[in-house]
Amino acid sequence: MTEKVMEEKVMDKIKIGIVGYGNLGRGAQLSIGQNDDMELCAIFTRRPVESVKPVDVSVPVIPLEDVLAWKGKIDVMILCGGSATDLPVQSPQLAADFNIIDSYDNHTNIPAHYEAVDEAAKSGGTLGMISGGWDPGLFSLLRLYGEVVLPVGETYTFWGKGVSQGHSDVIRRIEGVKGAVQYTIPQESAMERARAGEGSELTPRQKHLRDCYVVVEEGSDRESIRETIVNIPYYYADYDTKITFVSEEELERDHGGMPHGGFVIRSGQTGEKGHQELMEFSVKLDSNPEFTASVLVCYARALYRLSKKGRKGAITPLDIAPSLLSPKSGEELRKALL
Amino acid sequence: MTEKVMEEKVMDKIKIGIVGYGNLGRGAQLSIGQNDDMELCAIFTRRPVESVKPVDVSVPVIPLEDVLAWKGKIDVMILCGGSATDLPVQSPQLAADFNIIDSYDNHTNIPAHYEAVDEAAKSGGTLGMISGGWDPGLFSLLRLYGEVVLPVGETYTFWGKGVSQGHSDVIRRIEGVKGAVQYTIPQESAMERARAGEGSELTPRQKHLRDCYVVVEEGSDRESIRETIVNIPYYYADYDTKITFVSEEELERDHGGMPHGGFVIRSGQTGEKGHQELMEFSVKLDSNPEFTASVLVCYARALYRLSKKGRKGAITPLDIAPSLLSPKSGEELRKALL
Repeated sequence: MTEKVMEEKVMDKIKIGIVGYGNLGRGAQLSIGQNDDMELCAIFTRRPVESVKPVDVSVPVIPLEDVLAWKGKIDVMILCGGSATDLPVQSPQLAADFNIIDSYDNHTNIPAHYEAVDEAAKSGGTLGMISGGWDPGLFSLLRLYGEVVLPVGETYTFWGKGVSQGHSDVIRRIEGVKGAVQYTIPQESAMERARAGEGSELTPRQKHLRDCYVVVEEGSDRESIRETIVNIPYYYADYDTKITFVSEEELERDHGGMPHGGFVIRSGQTGEKGHQELMEFSVKLDSNPEFTASVLVCYARALYRLSKKGRKGAITPLDIAPSLLSPKSGEELRKALL
Repeated sequence: MTEKVMEEKVMDKIKIGIVGYGNLGRGAQLSIGQNDDMELCAIFTRRPVESVKPVDVSVPVIPLEDVLAWKGKIDVMILCGGSATDLPVQSPQLAADFNIIDSYDNHTNIPAHYEAVDEAAKSGGTLGMISGGWDPGLFSLLRLYGEVVLPVGETYTFWGKGVSQGHSDVIRRIEGVKGAVQYTIPQESAMERARAGEGSELTPRQKHLRDCYVVVEEGSDRESIRETIVNIPYYYADYDTKITFVSEEELERDHGGMPHGGFVIRSGQTGEKGHQELMEFSVKLDSNPEFTASVLVCYARALYRLSKKGRKGAITPLDIAPSLLSPKSGEELRKALL
């Protein structure tokens, strides 16, 4: 490669900003480091900037309130806040001035969130992708591929084995509980029924087991805490729940990771004889936030390209052609992957 | 629904033609029957038209040489011929006058086939999608999603359990052999190594087993036939090959189906600590041709839409946004699948 070409390559790098620097933001920075055609220009935070310690300290940490000074200097903002309170505000707000991508996962509110981002992005002349990640995200794609290829059939999603923050939190809020981690575990017997196309009647209890590791305060009554947990409506009452009491050290040592996983199963029938056809996609993750961030980062590439072509408004992973996600040319992809 | 709206819906149906009526063409007709927004207008064949018996006899069977009379009356032609001799000729030829979709799977020649279809389609103002189906096709998509989400990692494809026509044919050509069916079977031990990201050194022998059912002519020497088979270069010599001699009746009764399947495994690392992340896609099919045809049919919908938007030339499944494959609106998809 000549020096001039190399220089152009550097100049052409996609300029990324990260908004929010928790586990997901950190994962995004690490993922950008695995993609040569991107550079992280700045991290934006609502916290005191000196409290943020980026993986690569050469990246500037900027108060979020100063973000508008970066307008025109960032190609895509990756929003790494939470779906409960951060993204409903930040996504439309930032979409007015930047191309954004988020991992909004509050299912019921996705249509409203889409509308809010769409309006902001259209008026700002930007592009905003919502609901990246793996569910919603990759799993949504596979649910779609499943139902279009096999229109006569059923789709099943199973989650786990993995830590559910929501389910862990409700245990932590019980009096006498010092700490807790809940794993969602898919039931193998239910997955087998889904694969055979016989899963339409499966109950929540049959599909997932809830496996809890709980640290109690000294002198607390374990039996009454156990009773409280298994009877929490929606979260636990509808499931078989396994509870193991552990020490604070054990919880930290054995349950401090962020593994997750899941399965999308499409079981359908083709032809006159009802031939059974099965499509299955699964992920098994050591680090849920690092994997989720990796999905957002490759979608940032597609977003950049679509925005260069003049596309505006809100979109989702369902609207993005796979080849736009890759740094390789169409020719390279056809040769290597078809 | 008012009568007027119903009428418009009927008028709006996507008009499909099928070229070639073997197992794949028959599968395409059956799949079109599962998709309300499409209608099969005609089947084109090189055989004597009276020898073709369509599933639905109301569909006209037309000599392929008369196909040009249908120009403007068919939205998408689904080409159901073989990759060896049919598609290299038919795809470019028909792309000059029709939007076409094929399942071309001769890997080495895909770039040349793409160029030929691209040139014909551009000069004809049409759109041609090559290499639909599941491999190439869905498996190509999943290889792409794997490497963009996990750029540091490795992709493995396993095939089976399924019938390989090519491998069955080479046995059938041996003197003294009356019939044969070969199943390709992926080795579980190799898949486990791939999932753990430790599969880069896997040999063909470690990845797949070849399981053959063979009928011999009366008086033939089974041992010498066995020796001949296991030493056929490329097809068998590089693999562990299991041979079972069966009667003609057993072959027909137990091995007359067309099952297939396979796995795409992407094993990669994220973050500073090398967290292991696994993505896996698999299909398990009672009917390989019916499933392959079902993939082609949903891509015909996307092709129709892209062509309406004015897109021309050759494309592949990698270039097609998932939402274009579905009859549902963007709003419905976001609500149901995200």
